[in-house]
Amino acid sequence: MNTSSQMVDTKIMLTIEPPSQQWLMRARARLDQLTKPLGSLGTLEDLAAQMVSIRGEAFAEPMRKAVYVFAADHGVTAEGVSAYPSEVTRQMVLNFLSHGAAVNVLAKLHRVDINVVDVGVDADFDRIDGLLHHKVRRGTRNMMREPAMSADELSDALDVGLKLADSAMENSYNLVAVGEMGIGNTTAASAITAALTREPVDLITGKGTGLNAETLKRKCLIIEAVLGKHFDSLPANPLDVLRCVGGLEIAAMTGFILGLARHRTAVVVDGFISTAAAAIAFAIAPQVSGYLFAGHQSEEPGHRVLLEYIGLKPILALNMRLGEGTGAVLAMPILESAMCLYNQMATFESAGVSEAKD
Amino acid sequence: MNTSSQMVDTKIMLTIEPPSQQWLMRARARLDQLTKPLGSLGTLEDLAAQMVSIRGEAFAEPMRKAVYVFAADHGVTAEGVSAYPSEVTRQMVLNFLSHGAAVNVLAKLHRVDINVVDVGVDADFDRIDGLLHHKVRRGTRNMMREPAMSADELSDALDVGLKLADSAMENSYNLVAVGEMGIGNTTAASAITAALTREPVDLITGKGTGLNAETLKRKCLIIEAVLGKHFDSLPANPLDVLRCVGGLEIAAMTGFILGLARHRTAVVVDGFISTAAAAIAFAIAPQVSGYLFAGHQSEEPGHRVLLEYIGLKPILALNMRLGEGTGAVLAMPILESAMCLYNQMATFESAGVSEAKD
Repeated sequence: MNTSSQMVDTKIMLTIEPPSQQWLMRARARLDQLTKPLGSLGTLEDLAAQMVSIRGEAFAEPMRKAVYVFAADHGVTAEGVSAYPSEVTRQMVLNFLSHGAAVNVLAKLHRVDINVVDVGVDADFDRIDGLLHHKVRRGTRNMMREPAMSADELSDALDVGLKLADSAMENSYNLVAVGEMGIGNTTAASAITAALTREPVDLITGKGTGLNAETLKRKCLIIEAVLGKHFDSLPANPLDVLRCVGGLEIAAMTGFILGLARHRTAVVVDGFISTAAAAIAFAIAPQVSGYLFAGHQSEEPGHRVLLEYIGLKPILALNMRLGEGTGAVLAMPILESAMCLYNQMATFESAGVSEAKD
Repeated sequence: MNTSSQMVDTKIMLTIEPPSQQWLMRARARLDQLTKPLGSLGTLEDLAAQMVSIRGEAFAEPMRKAVYVFAADHGVTAEGVSAYPSEVTRQMVLNFLSHGAAVNVLAKLHRVDINVVDVGVDADFDRIDGLLHHKVRRGTRNMMREPAMSADELSDALDVGLKLADSAMENSYNLVAVGEMGIGNTTAASAITAALTREPVDLITGKGTGLNAETLKRKCLIIEAVLGKHFDSLPANPLDVLRCVGGLEIAAMTGFILGLARHRTAVVVDGFISTAAAAIAFAIAPQVSGYLFAGHQSEEPGHRVLLEYIGLKPILALNMRLGEGTGAVLAMPILESAMCLYNQMATFESAGVSEAKD
């Protein structure tokens, strides 16, 4: 661990305050006055109360929604861990910029601004407009041979996320989804999950974009080998985990989530990869969890383990396993619904509706 | 069973065609060409394929969404089966018309037209604007003493729904949510569920708007008594079930769902009560199920049983138990997302993205 990353660690921990318990209680009291049987809006009431605890009265404002899609390549793809060739990362970034990917369609429909960030794609994007250029390196190193990142590369990638969180605040976004694209990144996310939670590799490793039984077995063996190579014992220090077996986009998302929590901004994580970044952020600063919403339950088996590790319940469960932020953006109309109900419903008193009998 | 209801039964069965299997297959083929790993949009792919099977190419059109909220009172409330007084039905209808209820807020946010229908509220609404006036009777009869409806009343309530389905088609709605308001109607829905499925009453009866353990027990005993009074054996004929232990809003929703299916219109059912209407429609004409989407999984225990009976999987599971169409309207952005992804995503070919390795 180098000095700069240790500074990130300490500095961030000290500057993130948990959401307001006082606002949470005031939100609960208001919810009980709305014209509906007590508690009958279920999870929507929990979501509204959590949002109010994050932003206080500011949540009467309209929602300003954004999704940030972090893209990077992974050296470990040289080991044959993905069903798709790694050039697909570059191709999908171009697809995002042409508005042809799933996340583009969902963001447009639900009025969510989309930002595509190159943190480490193994391609030359220098002359391309519409992309946020923050490349730290053309892909991580192959974690089978050496740590995925040097200490400086990790620090740079975390800083990309922290700075983008500042920029999200300057844009007045109050609900931010975190997504990613990176062929090979379920391998990194599974390694992170095993390193943080000590769950067996075969229980937290899935088919990713579509491995068969044989290649899935190979992926598990590689993750086992990677864990043995880098860690003497588990669970390991979260920033060491991120540096040795993470990814540049995962590190940037970790910094982004920490930065958004510092700015008291609600964050919607997507699937397995972005939740791995959230899990690292949570391991560094547990108070982050109060700012997090889990957009959905992914089909990747490790996702459930990470959500439990952080203490999050998924809003949606639609058997999705696409990434890009799709599950997080799809949950945004639900979160926005919760806030509109909170702000706009009549109360028993204002509507002249009788309350329940004792 | 009177002649007019038997005619509704036979006439409808003959005029509802199942959705197109050919379009379903064409939809599946297109979904596999979109720039995402095969099947990675999970349930969204199933929803899109079902919608295409219902409407064919017409689903490239923009969504025109509506929710119909059917309101009526229930004579069985005289037995003390609800936590709220029955005047709340009238009060909530006024709340709908003042845009203060949960369904109003959700419909506005998600751009869904709202229609409030009086099929049988025990109040004089004659001079009120903005309400669809189709009152059959001021509340059902008390099913503890006599059938909830006469044969003519049932026939009239079914006709209300059938005619509103015609009007929905004339308004070019292609996605229609079905909701309700009626103090006492979970008692009717539980009785319907027991009569159709033969499940034990205590397993399919819940707290409704908020009963305690003691009043819940009373509600179960009343439902047992009602079933014993009206039916010699179970399962009973679905129109007999509707007439003896149903409700005017439930009968109207049954007619509405049958009529929408006849017009090849996608229907989103809400919670326990509207699904009870869908279950009666399904029992009359099983091909209806191809037109149905289950907006959410309600907290009422009988809802799960009815969804399984029809063969529906809920889109959302947010512990809601409010009714009004709230769960159905909340699922509409998910359904709309599925159709936008289907219509707007790039294909591997158009975007120049590599496909998976073998």
